[in-house]
Amino acid sequence: MSNAAVTPPPHIIARKRDGLTLADAEIEAFVRGATDGSWADYQLSAMLMAIYIRGLDPAETVALTRAMMHSGIVADLSAIPARKVDKHSTGGVGDKISLHLAPMIAACGVAVPMISGRGLGHTGGTLDKLEAIPGFRVGVSLAEYQALVARTGCALIGQTPELAPADKKLYSLRDVTATVACRPLICASIMSKKLAEGIDALVLDVKCGGGAFMKTEAEARELAGMMVSIGNAMGKPTRALLTRMDEPLGHAVGNAVEVAESIACLRGAGPADLMEVTLALGVEMLLLAGAARDEAEARARLAAVIADGSALERFRMIVTAQGGDARVVDAPGEVMRPARLLHEVRAAQAGYVQSVAALDVALAALHLGAGRTRAENPVDHAVGFTRLVKTGTRVAVGDVLAVIHANDEANAAQAEAMLQKAIVIGESSPERLALILGRL
Amino acid sequence: MSNAAVTPPPHIIARKRDGLTLADAEIEAFVRGATDGSWADYQLSAMLMAIYIRGLDPAETVALTRAMMHSGIVADLSAIPARKVDKHSTGGVGDKISLHLAPMIAACGVAVPMISGRGLGHTGGTLDKLEAIPGFRVGVSLAEYQALVARTGCALIGQTPELAPADKKLYSLRDVTATVACRPLICASIMSKKLAEGIDALVLDVKCGGGAFMKTEAEARELAGMMVSIGNAMGKPTRALLTRMDEPLGHAVGNAVEVAESIACLRGAGPADLMEVTLALGVEMLLLAGAARDEAEARARLAAVIADGSALERFRMIVTAQGGDARVVDAPGEVMRPARLLHEVRAAQAGYVQSVAALDVALAALHLGAGRTRAENPVDHAVGFTRLVKTGTRVAVGDVLAVIHANDEANAAQAEAMLQKAIVIGESSPERLALILGRL
Repeated sequence: MSNAAVTPPPHIIARKRDGLTLADAEIEAFVRGATDGSWADYQLSAMLMAIYIRGLDPAETVALTRAMMHSGIVADLSAIPARKVDKHSTGGVGDKISLHLAPMIAACGVAVPMISGRGLGHTGGTLDKLEAIPGFRVGVSLAEYQALVARTGCALIGQTPELAPADKKLYSLRDVTATVACRPLICASIMSKKLAEGIDALVLDVKCGGGAFMKTEAEARELAGMMVSIGNAMGKPTRALLTRMDEPLGHAVGNAVEVAESIACLRGAGPADLMEVTLALGVEMLLLAGAARDEAEARARLAAVIADGSALERFRMIVTAQGGDARVVDAPGEVMRPARLLHEVRAAQAGYVQSVAALDVALAALHLGAGRTRAENPVDHAVGFTRLVKTGTRVAVGDVLAVIHANDEANAAQAEAMLQKAIVIGESSPERLALILGRL
Repeated sequence: MSNAAVTPPPHIIARKRDGLTLADAEIEAFVRGATDGSWADYQLSAMLMAIYIRGLDPAETVALTRAMMHSGIVADLSAIPARKVDKHSTGGVGDKISLHLAPMIAACGVAVPMISGRGLGHTGGTLDKLEAIPGFRVGVSLAEYQALVARTGCALIGQTPELAPADKKLYSLRDVTATVACRPLICASIMSKKLAEGIDALVLDVKCGGGAFMKTEAEARELAGMMVSIGNAMGKPTRALLTRMDEPLGHAVGNAVEVAESIACLRGAGPADLMEVTLALGVEMLLLAGAARDEAEARARLAAVIADGSALERFRMIVTAQGGDARVVDAPGEVMRPARLLHEVRAAQAGYVQSVAALDVALAALHLGAGRTRAENPVDHAVGFTRLVKTGTRVAVGDVLAVIHANDEANAAQAEAMLQKAIVIGESSPERLALILGRL
């Protein structure tokens, strides 16, 4: 394109600044500018602030997503005959669903090309959990990614530089300019990366509640609606479940301890709440992939791949393919380095567990070193919690509420105090609330 | 200040993003960040966009002005016994008032420490005009500036790096991020630089109309009111005149040609419209300086310094002190390099001049090379227009409407076409409109 045809960045910024609707070509110029450096960082951030305050309408959000998706390579998985379906979660405490759901779906004959981010919340992300398995490599090339999906029907990897590079650039600026919490930008960021994976369809787990990014169901529903619209507008059938994130999922929070819990799920021994959400998401994935005619058939298939061990074997295959020590499947507690200290947290009063505040549990895990507050910080894979009590459980004085896995006495003591505050015990049995709040 | 006490930039940006009122300390942190580089450019520009869209209230605007004023050195002219009063114009076509008003006021015993910007409009700024005088130096140090004011009662210089450095940084970012046209930012930019000059009082010439930055009287009045409030809040008596800028001031537009017209004003031969605005501003300056008890006395003093030649001699002294060829005072047409071509523009129809569109005249002058569109471009001091006809003049076919001074035939032809369009001739005598629209 000749210089004469390029609209100067300030002209485009000014239009959004004034609350006007941007044309596709203007949004494309912005994203191209972020990718090739032809817009300076200070111009990108001025535009991000204008977008934050003025918003983007649905058509602009789709255009932004499309431009970001095409800012790099869109993976071509067309040589793989299976349908390719991914699942994305907006993030919750104890959310290790990807680790066992991906091999379950792959065992059903549906490919799961899953590219995840690192956790920048209070607990580790999917990549951090996988790296608790000795040797497991999440940093693979785009070519190896394609080979992994072809070979094992699954890839559990980190972002590659070729996919949606504009998102990496824009996210790094948003992070330092107070423009993260903007729904159209969040949606475009998530969807552009997912659509660049080469998927046919996508299932979203949009969490809401005290332990989620979206605190209210209304906010979560709006975010989910936007992302479903974008996916469908881009020709990729997309569904979202709204799920409750008030208490951690399952009994384990950390990295190695969550891998172990996922392996238990694959053995048919998963906690009820964790399996309820896992199966609900799995049903949507199989239905979108055309691998089941209805929910009943989808549930039967998911039950079968656990019962016959094929999901567990698929997980072993994936771990091996990505360089991990596959013995983790049989002896997670021995293969993954354990924490130095185990410490039981016990109930100081009798009654029913009224609530287990997910955010507070996450902050306690962060204190142990299970998560990070800065992208460049390492995480301690060994630390975290197991046997975390669930809301509604009846406890006597002295009953175990959780087991702390720590590498430092002071941190363990601090984490215990934080857990004791996070777990509220009262006299009456609390109302049982639904985990699955809606489906879009 | 310890690191722990510094609020992170995104936290402050987020507050303005959300439309909250910033505390003085937050505004100071922003300005300090712009000055010492502790805020990245992309953070400054995100903040500027948030300010553009959300606005600043009067107290925030004063705090911003104060912080920018103190971002560098505030010149200390206290050793100079005279009162120090400056005049600032928001910019108009043919506005050479500073060139003759400053020596007039200095001849009345009031010091005029005047630091101007380069023109980044369609015609040259005050500095460009002064540089049409061979040898005239506008780039002087802060020490020399103080010495000039002490010696001649006047300095006509460009921005020095020590004064309000935050403004330089923020302006350069505003220019490329579509955040220039924001009234609180404009006011803080102008006032911080003026207040850093070491003045006791300030008179503002806020122009409105087709040839001004502010197109409507309401906009100009709002801007003027803001600046007057800021100046007074900072303890510097400030007044503003609202003046009409629909047609160019005087008969000359360019650089050397405007210097010549200013010298004519000092000789008592200035055009009526130009002198009307000059004297109105001069009256305010003398009143604020306490150099006259009332308007009548102020007008008499201004008339006297022209009649007795002392204003002209003061101009000669200033030119000499700043390295310029003082013979310009006696023979401007010979000392300043003339343009190669002179070309008369003649009326194609008879009637009354209905309007002379200032902006179109400015664009024609820009086409000749009298102004610049980029800060780094040079200007051609020799080109421009003289004998430009005034609104209300009765003309016959063939009468001269203007004389083009050009260095290139093609440019001259284009400028003629542009002037012919800019000058509208009609049958009836147009209503005469007041030049001074208000006083704040």
